[in-house]
Amino acid sequence: MGSHLFIGLDFGTDSVRALVADADGQAVADAVRPYPRWAEGRFCAAAGNQFRQHPLDYLEALTDAVRDALQGIDPSRVLGIGIDTTASTPCLVDQGGRPLALRPEFADDPDAMFILWKDHTAIAEATRINEVAHGGSFEDYTRYEGGAYSEEWFWSKVLHVLRGNPRVRDAAASAVECCDWIPAELCGAPVKPGRCARGHKAMWHTSWGGLPPAAFFHEVDPLLDPVRASLGQDSFTADVPVGRLAPAWAHRLDLPASVAVSGGVIDCHMGAVGANVAPGTVVKVCGTSTCDVLVAPSVDRCIEGICGQVDGSVVPGLVGLEAGQASFGDVYAWLRNFLGYAGQVSIAQIEAEAAALPPSPSPVAALDWFNGRRTPYADASRSGAIVGLTLGTTVPMVYRALAEATVFGSRAIIDHFVAQGVAVERIVATGGIARKSPYVMQLLADVLGRSVAVADCDQTCALGGAIFGAVAAGFLPSVPAAMERMAARPGRTYTPRVELVPHYASLYRRYLDLGRDLGGGTGSR
Amino acid sequence: MGSHLFIGLDFGTDSVRALVADADGQAVADAVRPYPRWAEGRFCAAAGNQFRQHPLDYLEALTDAVRDALQGIDPSRVLGIGIDTTASTPCLVDQGGRPLALRPEFADDPDAMFILWKDHTAIAEATRINEVAHGGSFEDYTRYEGGAYSEEWFWSKVLHVLRGNPRVRDAAASAVECCDWIPAELCGAPVKPGRCARGHKAMWHTSWGGLPPAAFFHEVDPLLDPVRASLGQDSFTADVPVGRLAPAWAHRLDLPASVAVSGGVIDCHMGAVGANVAPGTVVKVCGTSTCDVLVAPSVDRCIEGICGQVDGSVVPGLVGLEAGQASFGDVYAWLRNFLGYAGQVSIAQIEAEAAALPPSPSPVAALDWFNGRRTPYADASRSGAIVGLTLGTTVPMVYRALAEATVFGSRAIIDHFVAQGVAVERIVATGGIARKSPYVMQLLADVLGRSVAVADCDQTCALGGAIFGAVAAGFLPSVPAAMERMAARPGRTYTPRVELVPHYASLYRRYLDLGRDLGGGTGSR
Repeated sequence: MGSHLFIGLDFGTDSVRALVADADGQAVADAVRPYPRWAEGRFCAAAGNQFRQHPLDYLEALTDAVRDALQGIDPSRVLGIGIDTTASTPCLVDQGGRPLALRPEFADDPDAMFILWKDHTAIAEATRINEVAHGGSFEDYTRYEGGAYSEEWFWSKVLHVLRGNPRVRDAAASAVECCDWIPAELCGAPVKPGRCARGHKAMWHTSWGGLPPAAFFHEVDPLLDPVRASLGQDSFTADVPVGRLAPAWAHRLDLPASVAVSGGVIDCHMGAVGANVAPGTVVKVCGTSTCDVLVAPSVDRCIEGICGQVDGSVVPGLVGLEAGQASFGDVYAWLRNFLGYAGQVSIAQIEAEAAALPPSPSPVAALDWFNGRRTPYADASRSGAIVGLTLGTTVPMVYRALAEATVFGSRAIIDHFVAQGVAVERIVATGGIARKSPYVMQLLADVLGRSVAVADCDQTCALGGAIFGAVAAGFLPSVPAAMERMAARPGRTYTPRVELVPHYASLYRRYLDLGRDLGGGTGSR
Repeated sequence: MGSHLFIGLDFGTDSVRALVADADGQAVADAVRPYPRWAEGRFCAAAGNQFRQHPLDYLEALTDAVRDALQGIDPSRVLGIGIDTTASTPCLVDQGGRPLALRPEFADDPDAMFILWKDHTAIAEATRINEVAHGGSFEDYTRYEGGAYSEEWFWSKVLHVLRGNPRVRDAAASAVECCDWIPAELCGAPVKPGRCARGHKAMWHTSWGGLPPAAFFHEVDPLLDPVRASLGQDSFTADVPVGRLAPAWAHRLDLPASVAVSGGVIDCHMGAVGANVAPGTVVKVCGTSTCDVLVAPSVDRCIEGICGQVDGSVVPGLVGLEAGQASFGDVYAWLRNFLGYAGQVSIAQIEAEAAALPPSPSPVAALDWFNGRRTPYADASRSGAIVGLTLGTTVPMVYRALAEATVFGSRAIIDHFVAQGVAVERIVATGGIARKSPYVMQLLADVLGRSVAVADCDQTCALGGAIFGAVAAGFLPSVPAAMERMAARPGRTYTPRVELVPHYASLYRRYLDLGRDLGGGTGSR
């Protein structure tokens, strides 16, 4: 009863979760708090793909979530906190490292806030970065991030704001990723740049000594000069603690100031840790979108068309590889919302009817790129499609085609890893869809022709945070040791129905053909 | 009050309409009766695309409709009846010319009934007919029917039943089109084969002296030999009366036995007559599907990829050309039914929201071939599609894309006629969509870059029947003279918004590209 506890703080798109875990990874308490301003739809313009979050949203929600989760628990048992957030979610900061939106004169300026991962306002800036990176005057600094820099990532977003908002430009001294800022804020310490976000989102790599040189960013746009100059060359794996709770935060959270705070990482990487990732295992975090994480002792080549390969970004000492699908559960939700025009519907009901359809080939087929394509070969210009429609096409038939398309998108990622020489031996799924939809998980196993194990834990991201908290506190000696003891084990496992594997192989070829046919000659590598 | 009256009997897919018109084409009375067995869904298997109608459905419904329409009218004022039906809707008949389903032993056999136009069971038989027609041993007897024989047409359907049902095969002496059988039945006279159905659906043409020779059908399948032998070489334009009402029918309908009965024609051809078709005018009958009818004094070549060019099939003395879209209003109804999964919706409400969208290019695009493609180049294997879907795609956005796709399909037909050297000077739209959807009609004008006039009559098919009734009775001397006096005049006219013509020209190119991209290398001429 008096045993040690660790808090995982998981900052998602809509809310923060505080998971209190014991030294065996068992959840002791749990609380979720939505971001209050975000919940009101402030600072966003969905039509323009602008999604911004106020820094106070994070601070207020985390305070409430931690205090709520700790109710009835002796706070002196807590030794460490680990943190993950969405990414790339950067913010412009002042000379003192404060997000500009925390200054009164910028309190309502969306450009002074965190630019959420799914904000797609920076397309022109990503194009410019890729032009310079692939133009021949510099080495290709995108090559460890899949060979194409995304409009969702750090430098694109920072440049977009600097170009478009002179007030913010004048006040900004630097920029920070959300997962780096939260630990620094909790410790009252300077930002300790995390290996994870810097490597996957900001082109940091040891082979060129850290970030690309100032001359590269100057060529992209001289507006980037001061931000580049402000950022050091180092980055740190998340097992290196950022510090201990600042007295003000210890007071606010009702925790001892001795509590250690780990470095912050990207949420799905924490999920991989929580789901006990190991070399050869793909951990597939299946939610609104997916993040597919692998770790490997070493990778002797640049893997094309993924979201990055970064030493120590997931587990210190191993190379972390990230891929993903830009929409997954969101595709099913699109259908629900579309039907919502007429009235409330339940995805579970549609899914049950889809599951009851005979597995014979249907003329209906779909592409899952409703939010662009993330992997392989990120291309935000691609979109979803439903073809083979007839006057007899029903909702369950369309649902099945959409579910198949999302799972074919999953297979394209696994096949891509294998084709690029990365060993894939096991698939572990986690996240909301993995827990809620046996239909989609069975389909995944059938389509992959591989077993799919669902991690036996509802909150692997937050559990990963608790694991890093245990390491930051020095309670457990290393991340692998902490995973060994605390990470989730495989729960329900789906095995492929061998009789259906050829059927889905044929439908998968149709999916690939459809993507090629609708590619219009671009982006369909 | 004592003036002469004419009855148009319009046999649609679900019901028969009896329109009583005076000598100026004004409706005096009107009644509609559904087909009772069909309304119960009997003899059909939608999943297998089998749609059959019992002959008694037609006879019972027409009796009730005529008696109902004539209530309070002095029957001695009625001089003539004109008839149109769906087509190709053939039925196997016995030695006496009776549809087999009227014999007790076949009363419940779907193969002994009329095979409705949209029945798609005869795909293999159509393929066989095209093989022989294009194989080089015979001249191409399909060339005046667009160059490809359809599974919806007479010989395909007859052969399908003969191949599959030995009982029907043994009892059948011949086969008859619905539009030919109804007038013969009403007169108690032998079938007088109509030029319209025989020319558009059965490969009848003067250049080879009528139907293709017996050797051709023998090569297709010897099972066709007796049917071919039973059919004469003649065919008749519909202004030639079939006879006068048989006493039994005069009694049943409470009409004088002196009433003349015209030849029967295909419904949309009657609609063209009712809408006052003339050389250079396309009459577009816009309902669940469309039928696009042109007439020309002469046509000096074979028009490819349409549904036939037949001398006298619409207006005696002119060549009638037929094209069409296999689904039109049905595409909008598909969306309504799809949304109906969640609850009742109104197309009118969705349409109003679609109309309110700014006319800027949308990423959403569609193909309208939800029931296959009819013209140009009939291809039942093509299907509908919706592409460019994103998580922000709404119902009105999809509706707009579907409406645009149906109208682009309309433009493809007009462009095809023009490219093949057929003059198109005016567009007259009629049918349910033409009267009910100003949004679609305005879109049609914008996309065509031409004015679209809607015929000022709700029931042009039935009015066409009344016109033929007046000619059959000898009351008016010819079809053109009767049209001059009785046919509908242009009502509301939609003029293209010139500022939008380039916008739609660009979207139309995208539609053509999409059809090509999704063609899979077949059927995408």
